[in-house]
Amino acid sequence: MISTGYTFISNQFMLHSKTAERLYHEFAKDMPIIDYHCHVSPQEIATNRSYENLTELWLHGDHYKWRAMRTMGISEEYITGGKTDKEKYMKWAEVVPYTMGNPLYHWTHLELKRYFQIDDLLNPKTAEGIWEKTREQLKSKELRTQGIISQSNVEVICTTDDPIDSLEAHETIANDDSFATNVYPAFRPDKSLFVRSPQYPSYIEQLAEAAGTTIYTCNDLVEALKNRAAYFHARGCRLSDHGLETLPFSSCKESEAEAIFAKARIGEELTIEEERQFQTYVLLSLGRVYHSLGWTMQFHLGALRNNNLRMLDRLGPDTGFDSIGDFPIARELNQFLNELDRNNELPKTILYTLNPIYNDVIASAIGNFQSSDAVGKIQFGSGWWYNDQKDGMEKQMKDLANIGLLSTFVGMLTDSRSFLSYTRHEYFRRILCNLIGSWVEAGELPPDEEWLGKLVQNICYHNAKHYFQL
Amino acid sequence: MISTGYTFISNQFMLHSKTAERLYHEFAKDMPIIDYHCHVSPQEIATNRSYENLTELWLHGDHYKWRAMRTMGISEEYITGGKTDKEKYMKWAEVVPYTMGNPLYHWTHLELKRYFQIDDLLNPKTAEGIWEKTREQLKSKELRTQGIISQSNVEVICTTDDPIDSLEAHETIANDDSFATNVYPAFRPDKSLFVRSPQYPSYIEQLAEAAGTTIYTCNDLVEALKNRAAYFHARGCRLSDHGLETLPFSSCKESEAEAIFAKARIGEELTIEEERQFQTYVLLSLGRVYHSLGWTMQFHLGALRNNNLRMLDRLGPDTGFDSIGDFPIARELNQFLNELDRNNELPKTILYTLNPIYNDVIASAIGNFQSSDAVGKIQFGSGWWYNDQKDGMEKQMKDLANIGLLSTFVGMLTDSRSFLSYTRHEYFRRILCNLIGSWVEAGELPPDEEWLGKLVQNICYHNAKHYFQL
Amino acid sequence: MISTGYTFISNQFMLHSKTAERLYHEFAKDMPIIDYHCHVSPQEIATNRSYENLTELWLHGDHYKWRAMRTMGISEEYITGGKTDKEKYMKWAEVVPYTMGNPLYHWTHLELKRYFQIDDLLNPKTAEGIWEKTREQLKSKELRTQGIISQSNVEVICTTDDPIDSLEAHETIANDDSFATNVYPAFRPDKSLFVRSPQYPSYIEQLAEAAGTTIYTCNDLVEALKNRAAYFHARGCRLSDHGLETLPFSSCKESEAEAIFAKARIGEELTIEEERQFQTYVLLSLGRVYHSLGWTMQFHLGALRNNNLRMLDRLGPDTGFDSIGDFPIARELNQFLNELDRNNELPKTILYTLNPIYNDVIASAIGNFQSSDAVGKIQFGSGWWYNDQKDGMEKQMKDLANIGLLSTFVGMLTDSRSFLSYTRHEYFRRILCNLIGSWVEAGELPPDEEWLGKLVQNICYHNAKHYFQL
Repeated sequence: MISTGYTFISNQFMLHSKTAERLYHEFAKDMPIIDYHCHVSPQEIATNRSYENLTELWLHGDHYKWRAMRTMGISEEYITGGKTDKEKYMKWAEVVPYTMGNPLYHWTHLELKRYFQIDDLLNPKTAEGIWEKTREQLKSKELRTQGIISQSNVEVICTTDDPIDSLEAHETIANDDSFATNVYPAFRPDKSLFVRSPQYPSYIEQLAEAAGTTIYTCNDLVEALKNRAAYFHARGCRLSDHGLETLPFSSCKESEAEAIFAKARIGEELTIEEERQFQTYVLLSLGRVYHSLGWTMQFHLGALRNNNLRMLDRLGPDTGFDSIGDFPIARELNQFLNELDRNNELPKTILYTLNPIYNDVIASAIGNFQSSDAVGKIQFGSGWWYNDQKDGMEKQMKDLANIGLLSTFVGMLTDSRSFLSYTRHEYFRRILCNLIGSWVEAGELPPDEEWLGKLVQNICYHNAKHYFQL
Repeated sequence: MISTGYTFISNQFMLHSKTAERLYHEFAKDMPIIDYHCHVSPQEIATNRSYENLTELWLHGDHYKWRAMRTMGISEEYITGGKTDKEKYMKWAEVVPYTMGNPLYHWTHLELKRYFQIDDLLNPKTAEGIWEKTREQLKSKELRTQGIISQSNVEVICTTDDPIDSLEAHETIANDDSFATNVYPAFRPDKSLFVRSPQYPSYIEQLAEAAGTTIYTCNDLVEALKNRAAYFHARGCRLSDHGLETLPFSSCKESEAEAIFAKARIGEELTIEEERQFQTYVLLSLGRVYHSLGWTMQFHLGALRNNNLRMLDRLGPDTGFDSIGDFPIARELNQFLNELDRNNELPKTILYTLNPIYNDVIASAIGNFQSSDAVGKIQFGSGWWYNDQKDGMEKQMKDLANIGLLSTFVGMLTDSRSFLSYTRHEYFRRILCNLIGSWVEAGELPPDEEWLGKLVQNICYHNAKHYFQL
Repeated sequence: MISTGYTFISNQFMLHSKTAERLYHEFAKDMPIIDYHCHVSPQEIATNRSYENLTELWLHGDHYKWRAMRTMGISEEYITGGKTDKEKYMKWAEVVPYTMGNPLYHWTHLELKRYFQIDDLLNPKTAEGIWEKTREQLKSKELRTQGIISQSNVEVICTTDDPIDSLEAHETIANDDSFATNVYPAFRPDKSLFVRSPQYPSYIEQLAEAAGTTIYTCNDLVEALKNRAAYFHARGCRLSDHGLETLPFSSCKESEAEAIFAKARIGEELTIEEERQFQTYVLLSLGRVYHSLGWTMQFHLGALRNNNLRMLDRLGPDTGFDSIGDFPIARELNQFLNELDRNNELPKTILYTLNPIYNDVIASAIGNFQSSDAVGKIQFGSGWWYNDQKDGMEKQMKDLANIGLLSTFVGMLTDSRSFLSYTRHEYFRRILCNLIGSWVEAGELPPDEEWLGKLVQNICYHNAKHYFQL
């Protein structure tokens, strides 16, 4: 088994032509990162958290790795259970060579190379040495959260936050003059929409408290969310985000929304159709709020969550039991966007799909609502979650290029809980440059590297900079 | 920015192997064109229309370009609005370099090369020169509609016509001995089927008048359409066409069809299910008519139209606000074809899908109804609309090859409103030859260029010639 | 037309890099075959059937070839009708050169090469010679069923059998000491589930008889199936199989299942929803039986069958009139697996999809139910039926690799009715090695051929060996 004396993450990694190499190294590589959507903890940035070992960084919260370990038949004790950090890491090292073809193989070695200057391939033979070496390195300032962010050339981070969040951590970071990266909140009011959840009434109480108001009606709810959006806005927030199976569009009058909310408020059971109506109503109301604030509205569509109830009981949500749904979206997605557009209340919008079979639907739907409000006003978001690998990202970019304009794309985001994930931007940029390079080398684009390099820099940085106005 | 002194549209354009080059240049290139489905205006052929400038040819009706311009944030004034032709053209020239990866980039330069012998790449630096040069060239006879068609080696054109059309323009063309291309009508009775439209009753009046009859019943309607089909047939029509979200199959007795029609006739509101029943009934009736006439029946499935109501009010339909639907089709499509097949009344049929996720469904469904009536009797139509680019056309051909027989394919059509679009046949032929060439060079096909060249010629010309019997 | 003096099926066939060649020839090629799912006749093995000519082997039951012939417009007389074997073969030889791009072209020549050492390409010029040569060769012992199986290095065959089958043929084979391959039954109780079929009541009688019991209730039915599963188990059966449009999950209490069964038992009409409920109930019961026996449960999802009723009347089922469905599966598939998993009753499971648009749904769903019970406990099955070609198999492997772990894959199966189909394993292995080789040559995997060769051998043989415990 090859493990040492070989450089896997070379300068040419993922760059399969000379044009691709030049586009990456001369244009893409040094662009700052605007990580406009992720799930890192602002607290861990504010406190400049340090890590004792790779398990803390890699295995305490990464459900991609957990799923791979479970697939290898490894007992939960080594994954989320009581085994020591070292034991868990050693199991992971056993699994890595079996991840051939999965992005985990690339991500793992990219992270070892960039943050620990390690070329050795991780496997049972090298595991011990890498464990010791990285434990030593992790004591340095450069590998605390702020150090990782700074050395990764991150200009902006947008976290993902509940409207009830006080945003204290964001204030602490903003007041820390020694840390240059801007860390802004993003507004994710999913809990206000999941009206059939048993926790709904108590969440509404919390929201009312956060907003310093009372919420008796649906109108109160919208006002409270508006109030919180203003609070977020004052702290630099310019994006919202919503996670939904599909974007609903089901006719709902104000009186109907009020009736549904009145039932939800006291925990009465609602039908799925009532939920869809309510969500349509509130999402449209929020869309108008976002538009008035100049925000960008994000929708992450198509995840089928919490499929394993035995493990949900044991580990809670977001532990590796979510999968790709196959819910048609075309008609209602267009209707929803149209409803806001017709009165000129449609904010900038980014649509992400977990199922790549809807790429073409989205790539074509966004074209129906472009306007002179912004370049690429409606965006098809980068390959998300299971699609965050070479084939998935290439497919998203090709589908966007064929049906819309790749050159207006706001590009990559980490969507990650891990601070080592800034290498995903490198991964994306290499794949982007490789794609454009392959077109040039095949004679399908003129070899105008100055121009293509400019478009690459736009996709890596300038488009996001102009679009989000952070 | 590269703009001059470089030949983008070279002889090798899209041909990535020596086999591909030979297949294209020795076999495909000189085949005549049978453009069996398009949306050009027969009036503009009959009158041998001339053009003053590129904007007339390129921007007055091309919603592909309009969508790209809107995506770049360009104001509608420069797209469909009041700006001058020159101003619109200059805006388009700004956009072109940003269409990297989109077929517009290829189409634009292919059209400049073939019809104007221009190698310069269109961008703000070259725009002025190209504007002047082409304005001069457009004065020549070769660049009037008939000249463009003749120099493009077009043997047959089938336009797309409403049953109420008098086909006067077609007669004018037929009587014009100086023009060799045959221009036939095709029968597109969509308006007879959209029974929920407010315009339905008045359309039925027009149809009755065109057919020289009265239409009181559904049976009258079918008879009137049959009458018009005979009229079209006498003028060379051999194809019909239908645009539908899905091919419906919903049981409908004659008495039910009559009841639904009676309501529609006087503008009463109908349910979606009634519309589906009615469409099933009338489409089956039409299928029998087409079968008896030896016609080919075409279905364009899966477009979700007029999604932006604000712009629909302002600009009307077909102005760039249509997108790809995700409507399942497998079961009803098979049921519909079976219903006609069971009494041997199924005409030759071509199925086009706007959403490529249904490619495999169609490629397999056609195989259920092939018969000794014709070679490749049921066809999977070429990559349509958003799929009319390299990846989309390759995917359609690969899916057809894997599941059916590529060698029986009737090949390309422009589906265009523009007379410069005959270059799409060249684009298709290059992609076809490149695909087959790549198989040969990989050893996945024997290097039998004589045989493969023959199959290429079949797909480019002879299959259509034999199939349509125009 | 090239037909002789050229070797199409060379050593490098489908292997487009040196790494691919080495992986195939040094690691994959000599692995024994475990053909864990197929439709060959155990009787034909037991009697060591011989064949008079290629038509018997190729055309008497192969609906892939029938569909290609029908697409070429060939009359049914030459396909399933009264023409002689020679006439049918000659027609097929005419069609072969037109199958360019279809897997039939590869399969045909692979079978001629491996079993008849013929390099000539089949076409009208070579047809006569190949007919004669193969007729001679077919007289040898090596080309009777057992000879074909033995020379193909097949270690295990699992046939597909109805629970009412006596498994006599399997016993005969087991007792034949001169034949080394193990031939086991697999349990396919579809007929117990198709409760709306007119044949249902009489099938239940047959099942009762086979089980030596009476079946008055749904509970009796499950007991009878359990009894037959035990009978199969004693004869080496370790797999079940189910063919369904979708995996249903519709809540059904025992009392409801009993009420539905009571109606079905006497031939009363049932709704589609009742069928779904009943199937959910019985499939869950069977899942528990399979789990208790340590079996693997297979689901073949998404076929839309018997679409041409005219031909169904004439030729019966499985004659080439089935196609790909587009039925969404994500939610119920997960619910079904969850229902068994929550009480730890989920057996090892393999999910096959006929429509590749659901590849990602399945590749992600399996990850929700992996556990320490087995490596790769829940499997995404190999490219099935229409997907059993290079693009389809590559897509299945890439989708699995990107979202799950390719290295745990149990690999290929023939799914065939033909004894020449063991070459499909060679075809698969070449495609697998080519895929991994392409990753290595692109620098996307380290060039560790020792390790990758081991993974290849696992996918070709060892994974299946460990997984099925046959």
